[in-house]
Amino acid sequence: MRTVCVVGVGMSQWGEVWRRSLRQLFVDAASKAIKGAGVDHLDSLYVGCMSSGLFVGQEHLGSVMADYLGMRGLPAMRVESACASGGMAIRAAFMEVGSGMSDIVMASGVEKMTDCDGDQATYALATAADQEYEVFHGATFPGLYAMMAHAHMAKYGTTREMLSQVAVKNHDNGALNPVSQYPFKITKEAVETGVMIADPLHILDCSPITDGAAAVIMTTEEIAKKLGKPYVRILGSGAATDSIALYQRPDMTTIKAATLASERALKMAGRKITDIQFAEVHDCFTIAELAILESIGVYERGKAGPATLAGETARDGKFPVNTSGGLKSKGHPVGATGVAQMIEVYKQLTGQAEGERQVKGSPKIAMTQNMGGSGGSSVVHIVEVA
Amino acid sequence: MRTVCVVGVGMSQWGEVWRRSLRQLFVDAASKAIKGAGVDHLDSLYVGCMSSGLFVGQEHLGSVMADYLGMRGLPAMRVESACASGGMAIRAAFMEVGSGMSDIVMASGVEKMTDCDGDQATYALATAADQEYEVFHGATFPGLYAMMAHAHMAKYGTTREMLSQVAVKNHDNGALNPVSQYPFKITKEAVETGVMIADPLHILDCSPITDGAAAVIMTTEEIAKKLGKPYVRILGSGAATDSIALYQRPDMTTIKAATLASERALKMAGRKITDIQFAEVHDCFTIAELAILESIGVYERGKAGPATLAGETARDGKFPVNTSGGLKSKGHPVGATGVAQMIEVYKQLTGQAEGERQVKGSPKIAMTQNMGGSGGSSVVHIVEVA
Repeated sequence: MRTVCVVGVGMSQWGEVWRRSLRQLFVDAASKAIKGAGVDHLDSLYVGCMSSGLFVGQEHLGSVMADYLGMRGLPAMRVESACASGGMAIRAAFMEVGSGMSDIVMASGVEKMTDCDGDQATYALATAADQEYEVFHGATFPGLYAMMAHAHMAKYGTTREMLSQVAVKNHDNGALNPVSQYPFKITKEAVETGVMIADPLHILDCSPITDGAAAVIMTTEEIAKKLGKPYVRILGSGAATDSIALYQRPDMTTIKAATLASERALKMAGRKITDIQFAEVHDCFTIAELAILESIGVYERGKAGPATLAGETARDGKFPVNTSGGLKSKGHPVGATGVAQMIEVYKQLTGQAEGERQVKGSPKIAMTQNMGGSGGSSVVHIVEVA
Repeated sequence: MRTVCVVGVGMSQWGEVWRRSLRQLFVDAASKAIKGAGVDHLDSLYVGCMSSGLFVGQEHLGSVMADYLGMRGLPAMRVESACASGGMAIRAAFMEVGSGMSDIVMASGVEKMTDCDGDQATYALATAADQEYEVFHGATFPGLYAMMAHAHMAKYGTTREMLSQVAVKNHDNGALNPVSQYPFKITKEAVETGVMIADPLHILDCSPITDGAAAVIMTTEEIAKKLGKPYVRILGSGAATDSIALYQRPDMTTIKAATLASERALKMAGRKITDIQFAEVHDCFTIAELAILESIGVYERGKAGPATLAGETARDGKFPVNTSGGLKSKGHPVGATGVAQMIEVYKQLTGQAEGERQVKGSPKIAMTQNMGGSGGSSVVHIVEVA
């Protein structure tokens, strides 16, 4: 396979963006990515989106988005893996460029989640779980992750304060990200006194409902060099699934799809987890960040919580996690999240993160970990600055 | 890129399959494809599906289907391009095998359309059109294709009888296909006296609502040879989009996405349209088959109808079209259709089409043409027997 690089990135504003439609959000992000990369055309487009059919009554996003980007004729398709759709769009584009089929490919993600009522959004999101054996019986995602949290607390002594610190830390980062839906700091007390969603998860343990889009331009190293813009190389891509239903897993405290995807990406990259200097991980709920950090081997089982409390995953810690603000503070337009993770590591590795958010010490290698459902799928990329 | 082959195929029963769920339909087809190819594992899975969220409340099909196939852990994602989702799944698998990323990949498609009411199904299908500028104003697909038909009749003198003959010919073929939803012959009179859906399209001008799944195993030529089963090579893959909305196109009588996709696939294959010996094309409505045959250059504009009347596209004609029965008779579970087209050309090229359905003269090269919406996207593959 040819080496695949990311040369330009773009994001729309994230949040309750009521004055912009699904297609407008996409075009905003995509136009910025094209301008950032300085490319004069695309060969192909991938659109990561979880459920535009349920959220806004529009499928067939490859056609819609190529059309509204002013590129009728462009080969385009949507990819979907629930909340990992964005990461899968990057993986698909990685294979298309890597194969030699195309030279310049856009991977994007978009979701418009606030055009429907809250109960409709909850229903749409629940279609990422097992419809027949979980959703039919009333399970939705806060409840599923609450069960993971209780199990993790029982097995490893993970505390309420550890969960709170994940949210506090990610808001500390997101407060500095200009696209964030919730760009403000919060306190542990605010997390712990917030309305209870599904015990033990309070509202500030949960990522929000978000409108937003993100796009990156992926190309060969030869073209990336010619464009003369900062770029990063994707060294490895790994994907995995697990049982769609949480109750079918032997251990609810670990996320096997993340373990497998991480192992596969690291193997392809020829790297070890200890080579990775920082990561964007899928903190859809506070417990998810801890479970993932243990599942991908950054910490031993039960150690991610204490490490978070000790500040190790903070921006100035020894392994910064979610410097973007994560899903928690930056927001979680489900199809776009995985692409935004790539944008954050691109910015950090090329020294373009905004102001204080920039990780010190010029890190060279990072990981993105994107996840669908309660861990039914995961996709991981290893990224190195050129 | 490495040469990519199809070595095993499988289909579920197609029709109103009320006793099998979305995942059961998939597992049925996928298991047959695995058995047919004789492979002992998969490296990756693509699931083409248009709108399982709206039809049955289940997204995240990569995870669901890998799980229920008994392959938890398998990298898997869903791809979507409306009714071209199946063809796009094949295209994605083609790039994954071609790139060297994986050796044995399943491309599949599935749709479960009869679990909801007819009006819900019509709404779900309409999400393949432009939600904001077509569907909002009441347009659904029979109406859009009816406008194409009227335009084609006005511009080229295409007659009611020519449309009827498309349906009659495809039912002649579908009557011999054991998976067909409607495995019986029909007469021109039956087409022309059937209930009017959208003038000039009667009910037998329209493909039906169908439950069904289809799957193929794609691999390298080296592995295909080792497996010792009949196989075909995919020589070229082409995809294209056009405006999502029909009214924005300068000419409603031609389908530009099909033209572009066909040109790109032929170019990659190093072939001309005159090299192609038969084709499966996207006859979602009778007019579509005529417009496509002209758009991909098999016939000049306005000549596909007369050629159909003259029997040229019949099974024993000089360019057989839709020997499977097409969407019209075999059925149209939208996400599965593109994969089933590949299965038909695989069977025909390897001499495995059932009984009378086998095209005479041992043809060597064929085309599949799959389409989304009113032509907002299309994907074409050129296939050669090994």
